Amino acid sequence: MVSKRLLTDYKKEVEKYLSEYLAEKESEYANISELTDLVNHDITNFTLRGGKRLRAALLYYSYKLFGGRSTKDIIRLSSYVELIQSSLLMHDDIFDNSDIRRGHDSIHKVYAKYAKSQKYPIHKHFGNVIGILAGDIACQMAYEVITTSNFDDDKKVKLIQLAANKTTDVLYGQILDFVLPYQKKYSEDDILKIDIYKTATYTYEMPIMSGAILAGITNGELKYLRDYAINAGIAFQIRDDVLGLFGDEEKLGKPATSDVKEGKRTLLILKTMQNGTPSQRQVLKRYLGRKDLTLEQFEEVRKVVKDTGSLDYSKAKSEEYVKKAQDALLKIDRQNQEEWVFLYDIVEYMIVRNI
Amino acid sequence: MVSKRLLTDYKKEVEKYLSEYLAEKESEYANISELTDLVNHDITNFTLRGGKRLRAALLYYSYKLFGGRSTKDIIRLSSYVELIQSSLLMHDDIFDNSDIRRGHDSIHKVYAKYAKSQKYPIHKHFGNVIGILAGDIACQMAYEVITTSNFDDDKKVKLIQLAANKTTDVLYGQILDFVLPYQKKYSEDDILKIDIYKTATYTYEMPIMSGAILAGITNGELKYLRDYAINAGIAFQIRDDVLGLFGDEEKLGKPATSDVKEGKRTLLILKTMQNGTPSQRQVLKRYLGRKDLTLEQFEEVRKVVKDTGSLDYSKAKSEEYVKKAQDALLKIDRQNQEEWVFLYDIVEYMIVRNI
Repeated sequence: MVSKRLLTDYKKEVEKYLSEYLAEKESEYANISELTDLVNHDITNFTLRGGKRLRAALLYYSYKLFGGRSTKDIIRLSSYVELIQSSLLMHDDIFDNSDIRRGHDSIHKVYAKYAKSQKYPIHKHFGNVIGILAGDIACQMAYEVITTSNFDDDKKVKLIQLAANKTTDVLYGQILDFVLPYQKKYSEDDILKIDIYKTATYTYEMPIMSGAILAGITNGELKYLRDYAINAGIAFQIRDDVLGLFGDEEKLGKPATSDVKEGKRTLLILKTMQNGTPSQRQVLKRYLGRKDLTLEQFEEVRKVVKDTGSLDYSKAKSEEYVKKAQDALLKIDRQNQEEWVFLYDIVEYMIVRNI
Repeated sequence: MVSKRLLTDYKKEVEKYLSEYLAEKESEYANISELTDLVNHDITNFTLRGGKRLRAALLYYSYKLFGGRSTKDIIRLSSYVELIQSSLLMHDDIFDNSDIRRGHDSIHKVYAKYAKSQKYPIHKHFGNVIGILAGDIACQMAYEVITTSNFDDDKKVKLIQLAANKTTDVLYGQILDFVLPYQKKYSEDDILKIDIYKTATYTYEMPIMSGAILAGITNGELKYLRDYAINAGIAFQIRDDVLGLFGDEEKLGKPATSDVKEGKRTLLILKTMQNGTPSQRQVLKRYLGRKDLTLEQFEEVRKVVKDTGSLDYSKAKSEEYVKKAQDALLKIDRQNQEEWVFLYDIVEYMIVRNI
């Protein structure tokens, strides 16, 4: 698949710039205190320690698709979406009490351990506070990257407005997502809404629209582009939830049991509750949200999700949204371009990926 | 004092716009869910429920001082500093476990109570998560306000860069402030550093420099303006700490015992530890950070801070920084203007204020 190669190539490019930028920031804010030096270094580590760089790549290829020419400038600029991502993940890990991210301690966990090693009287709260602040700092960095980029000021302003609006959407999505397990009832529409707000907005829409804005596109193609982005984002999230339950632990970068322990309500879970026999439903009721979940119990959960046909249903749904995204893209008449092929392919690659 | 009247007048102006803007946002993001509607409404309430609007006023008078003419536009724009303030306070209340802000429940407390009323199994964590997200949303709003203002794009970009950089400083200041009570040793310089990073940067420097940027000032006067802002900010924070211990509870908007219960390390505390007799120091060691502090014990703390001369020392220090701020302002030759008088007076008013 062409998109896989292009994504891998782009990952190197954007990470090269990200590491330069973060090193610059580390030295700019060095020596305020021992602890701030550590935090700065961990913002760098956290941001560079992995990730597909899908968002940055989407921004780049969208820009190129519409005739954008400043290769070096767009690579630098595209790093802003990865910094927003860092910021959101740092806070998200606190919400979910997730101690592992991308195979290492999440930021709040790093500083809970730090507080313990320093013999401070509080550990968890200390970690959470530093996690919140580190996320806040990464968000400011994202805006700074845009302001110091080499694009025209009118485009920068439009981009910042887009970033602020789309990030706001994500934050609303996080509220919806966080409260869902506590709601008495929820529907497929509720889950779809979360997929759109929490994921599609900043995984596809924000980068794709950023690229288009910077390339100067203002015409009717924007509508199709947005359709593409939203549907691609929904497909991505449905697949992400499947990986959360059936993915390879090592590639996931977190324990395979995390989503079940968190009690995450996904399409997989909803469909199992809707289609399961009373005893199948009982398995979910018993184990969802249990922090002491054993591997055996986890296997039971996976079994009922498979046996009820919910796994197949989710897979079919993600394919359906891939199709919708690709149909929207077909309305944009640039099919001879490599960038167009990237966008067309990537939505499919993202639902067959195992990471 | 002319500054008191001008500040009161300006408060009305900026709050009028803030309430319009927040109502607009509430309707723009209405009906995503019941909970998001509540959160939106509480962001509005929290932002409008009080505050001196010093920061917005400083932005306005700095702009006017340097010849800025768009009165309506600058009032709207100045609300961005109040939104940053909301964002920072929401997170800060979580750091400090402060349940009261401006005489009402802090955001995280509102949602801990909400979770309880809904019979959700978690309360405190639920409140903290919504508090973090509400603060994150307020921060995005601040950036959006700048992008949608009526100034030229080059000025907006400069302003956003300033806002991102200065907010970053505040976040570092919060790290310094948060870890201070756990450090084995700290000095007057450590406290001064916190006063500068955590307070001076966004209370005076960010608004004052914003006004100057928007008015188009780029010359040497910026240096004096910055000197003014930093010194004024230090004076402000020292006074704020005095009010935190000796201020009127009703006007403070939080229990008078809060700072002592939190174990906050201020200049007052440092000086008492440095100058106190062993038994006076013992009072602080015993009561600082005690959540079950009685009013009698609180009075003991106040007594040793007074008796050691630390209260007088702090007051003298804040006057010293007021003088430095005013001296810097004297180097800017616009002393016949009302705006100059506002800036000159306000630093003094801020250290005699009782709120």
